[in-house]
Amino acid sequence: MNDIARRTVFFVSDGTGITAETLGHSLLAQFPEARFRQVRAPFIDDIDKAIDCATQIREAAAEDGVRPIVFSTLVNQATVDALHKSDALFLDLFERFIGPLEAELGQRSTHAVGRFHGIADSLNYKHRIEAINFAMAHDDGISSEGELAEADVILVGVSRSGKTPTSLYLAMQFGVKAANYPLIPEDFERNKLPGELHKYRGKLFGLTIAPERLSQIRQERRPNSRYAALENCRYEIDAAHKLMRRENIRCLDSTTKSIEEISATILQTIRVDRPGF
Amino acid sequence: MNDIARRTVFFVSDGTGITAETLGHSLLAQFPEARFRQVRAPFIDDIDKAIDCATQIREAAAEDGVRPIVFSTLVNQATVDALHKSDALFLDLFERFIGPLEAELGQRSTHAVGRFHGIADSLNYKHRIEAINFAMAHDDGISSEGELAEADVILVGVSRSGKTPTSLYLAMQFGVKAANYPLIPEDFERNKLPGELHKYRGKLFGLTIAPERLSQIRQERRPNSRYAALENCRYEIDAAHKLMRRENIRCLDSTTKSIEEISATILQTIRVDRPGF
Repeated sequence: MNDIARRTVFFVSDGTGITAETLGHSLLAQFPEARFRQVRAPFIDDIDKAIDCATQIREAAAEDGVRPIVFSTLVNQATVDALHKSDALFLDLFERFIGPLEAELGQRSTHAVGRFHGIADSLNYKHRIEAINFAMAHDDGISSEGELAEADVILVGVSRSGKTPTSLYLAMQFGVKAANYPLIPEDFERNKLPGELHKYRGKLFGLTIAPERLSQIRQERRPNSRYAALENCRYEIDAAHKLMRRENIRCLDSTTKSIEEISATILQTIRVDRPGF
Repeated sequence: MNDIARRTVFFVSDGTGITAETLGHSLLAQFPEARFRQVRAPFIDDIDKAIDCATQIREAAAEDGVRPIVFSTLVNQATVDALHKSDALFLDLFERFIGPLEAELGQRSTHAVGRFHGIADSLNYKHRIEAINFAMAHDDGISSEGELAEADVILVGVSRSGKTPTSLYLAMQFGVKAANYPLIPEDFERNKLPGELHKYRGKLFGLTIAPERLSQIRQERRPNSRYAALENCRYEIDAAHKLMRRENIRCLDSTTKSIEEISATILQTIRVDRPGF
């Protein structure tokens, strides 16, 4: 019998709530035994909405039989006060950290609501959108002559080794322009990098994956195909390894790594010539 | 003369550092007047790396003439201690919040290092990757008959109104399967939704954009084209509005909104039948 009470967790914000949710997830992952139900409460930017949210928190407490946990990034004190009329464990991210930051910087914070993208961030935002468009336009080897010059990184690896999601994450999170290029049997037969990749050695980063995992992923796409057969996956991965070793391409195994981990590792090895890198 | 000292900000983590960076960015955006240089320090998962990082912090302090600010999600106390041998404003996310959470839950945290994806998260991770593949496979109207049944949301709007980056963000951040479908002049002439969209009215969500902004974005793609002409952008947006109004499609203006804001708003209005929504 499962006698652990379920807890409701609220992510409350005057903006998107993504900061509250990101930190909340990281903290809750430290308690793998606990059972959580998650509720997003974004755009709580006036007192009426905060009062409604407090009511939701009280209802969740009554339903669960234990008080909820609230991760909050509310900036406006009146909304904070309204929220605190309910009973919960409040983990207030701004309250804890804004004070020390103000003291350190000798400046008052703007206390601007919904400030997900500050002034300093708007250029970063533009870079991110451009990088997403770049990743889409240069996915899966669809790059014309000369276009890869603009890439910050070019991911290479066999089909379904994780290149596309990683390219998109690099773009979305960091504004890094990532192209990706599949290594296919024809490349192994020629024993040469495809297309113009030899021109951009410094930007190349290889992804590899365990043959068993690759076969499983490919099975979901094309069941019982030669493409998905374990033997073929072994051959392709082995040939890709040899090619990458010969060409001196740094390589990472994506089998048990998330796109976040792969991206953070790539950023440690490539050079991006923009502020923030 | 600019007499504000530049501060170096470190994002230190035993994992990817993305949590530290997300919270850090939100907090720093509250100080738009300050000048920051950002340094990522991911994968600080042993004492030697923490000692190296402490050295980097001291060097930054010497260079800037002011001590750095450090956002940290280190879990291991020995690495925390090694880091704290340098002088900085330490904003330690786990230290502040793990204690209250342990007390509330009546459980010790695992103190597991690099725990970006906990056990509970691995299913979410799978959903996210599937959703990214789905968004890629159903971008820009490339959906075959019946395939849209699987979508959680279908974004519609004129070309370059923000559908693709929003679809990808919904997938990446929330594991939401988002297809997107452009509304093109032929649709306005026929005065009907394209393809099979009429079958999925409950999943449709419209994006619109100011004509001036749209024209500017399209100019970057195809300078001096009819496609980018302000007059044509006005016509398309107006026609799209009329079509969406007639078909009762909820619609959001993306002109001054980030993909985070658009996505959080969409999630408030659509129904996703999975835990966490």
